[in-house]
Amino acid sequence: LAELAARSLSGLAEITAGADLAALIATALEAEHPARPLRDGHIVAIAHKIVSKSEGAVVDLNTIKPGPRALELAEQTIPTGAQAKDPRAVQVVLDQSAEIVRAERGVIVSRTHHGFVCANAGVDASNSVDPQTLIVLPREPDASARRIRARLRELTGASVAVLISDSFGRAWRHGQCDIAIGCAGLDPLDDWRGRSDGSGRELHATWPAVADAIAATADLARAKDSREPVVILEGLERFVNARDGPGAVALLRAPQEDLFR
Amino acid sequence: LAELAARSLSGLAEITAGADLAALIATALEAEHPARPLRDGHIVAIAHKIVSKSEGAVVDLNTIKPGPRALELAEQTIPTGAQAKDPRAVQVVLDQSAEIVRAERGVIVSRTHHGFVCANAGVDASNSVDPQTLIVLPREPDASARRIRARLRELTGASVAVLISDSFGRAWRHGQCDIAIGCAGLDPLDDWRGRSDGSGRELHATWPAVADAIAATADLARAKDSREPVVILEGLERFVNARDGPGAVALLRAPQEDLFR
Repeated sequence: LAELAARSLSGLAEITAGADLAALIATALEAEHPARPLRDGHIVAIAHKIVSKSEGAVVDLNTIKPGPRALELAEQTIPTGAQAKDPRAVQVVLDQSAEIVRAERGVIVSRTHHGFVCANAGVDASNSVDPQTLIVLPREPDASARRIRARLRELTGASVAVLISDSFGRAWRHGQCDIAIGCAGLDPLDDWRGRSDGSGRELHATWPAVADAIAATADLARAKDSREPVVILEGLERFVNARDGPGAVALLRAPQEDLFR
Repeated sequence: LAELAARSLSGLAEITAGADLAALIATALEAEHPARPLRDGHIVAIAHKIVSKSEGAVVDLNTIKPGPRALELAEQTIPTGAQAKDPRAVQVVLDQSAEIVRAERGVIVSRTHHGFVCANAGVDASNSVDPQTLIVLPREPDASARRIRARLRELTGASVAVLISDSFGRAWRHGQCDIAIGCAGLDPLDDWRGRSDGSGRELHATWPAVADAIAATADLARAKDSREPVVILEGLERFVNARDGPGAVALLRAPQEDLFR
């Protein structure tokens, strides 16, 4: 097994709508790591915010008129001692949600239209160019990953995998971990079910969420305050495929199979 | 930022009760990577199973007499088309549990006596030496990590962090990710709350679960069928401390704060 290595790119400019992300990544990579170009089997992990920005997946709060449900939730979810939520921001969360899963103790957990269960439907303000602008998740992150992957191949000749990540909180545990919201060229799950372990017996339930582990690894390779949304991973070639594959949507548990609603 | 690198050890023998894990790791490391000894700031990530085995945290099914609740749950949790659970194994899960959180569709999710919410209370059969032997979680994984850390320092002189991991399923998402059940010498959470991001504004909710991300990274660096329970990580020195620190128990959300019960 090759050693796992992850390095971040630091030279990416502020991303605006219509930016050719793949070209910016290829250029930054060439400038920062001239001796280490992208190769077949590398993984390019991208924090979703720059994908959202490049796709114009942002919302100007000044254009939002909160409805009665947003006004009610903004009141309801105030934790003791904290500021009230902006009802317009709550309206954006509702617009991004197919279903509210929990709304209590200052937290709105919802299922997004994509099927992700997370806080505030992935709507985010930090790192935004303007405090009145919220960043929402890309409309179809697997399609974004496929597009960036195809373009990187066109520009560099390398058949890489592309992964788009976001930071999600977890039930039962403090803190957030990055998980995959989109991917292309990658097996998101490594299906060991029915295979045998080193001792020859079956590994019944072993089904590693490889894409999520890669997202978590990429997040460790960057310093959050230094704006390093892109990480290149090597040594994981066994999970990289020539085809785009099922995407991160394969990681979603169907609501009817979900024990925690 | 230094590049993140992770390498696994492949030369560890089968672990038995009373084994000096730290000594076995130090010896294997010297044999496999003679030019790259442990250094201050390295992280030694260990799959919990070998810690459990070294501590004798195993249960012989032949010594277990299932009670009425175990018999009932073994019946209740049979998924369509699947085999019934061994009521003795269910009894072991109950013995390891403080509270059953869900028991349906073939899955028992419980809160262990440590406070971990996971499937089957972390009780595991795979990789076990004997099909009648189940491996349970270490009694106090943070204490195990502290002991192994102190012994590694004694043997190698290096002040490393030690992390003990297990594979947990997640609510809402398919597959498992490794998470930290014990650690020493490591900040398990990187508290960015109240600090500002690159644009100078506050990062309200950013609170990366560093220890869990490290566990996930370590799992990517090994091949599951080749018995590589130990992974050495470099480039994460900023999370490593001279003191043992709060341990992985700091990652547990208190039941009364938990929205998903």
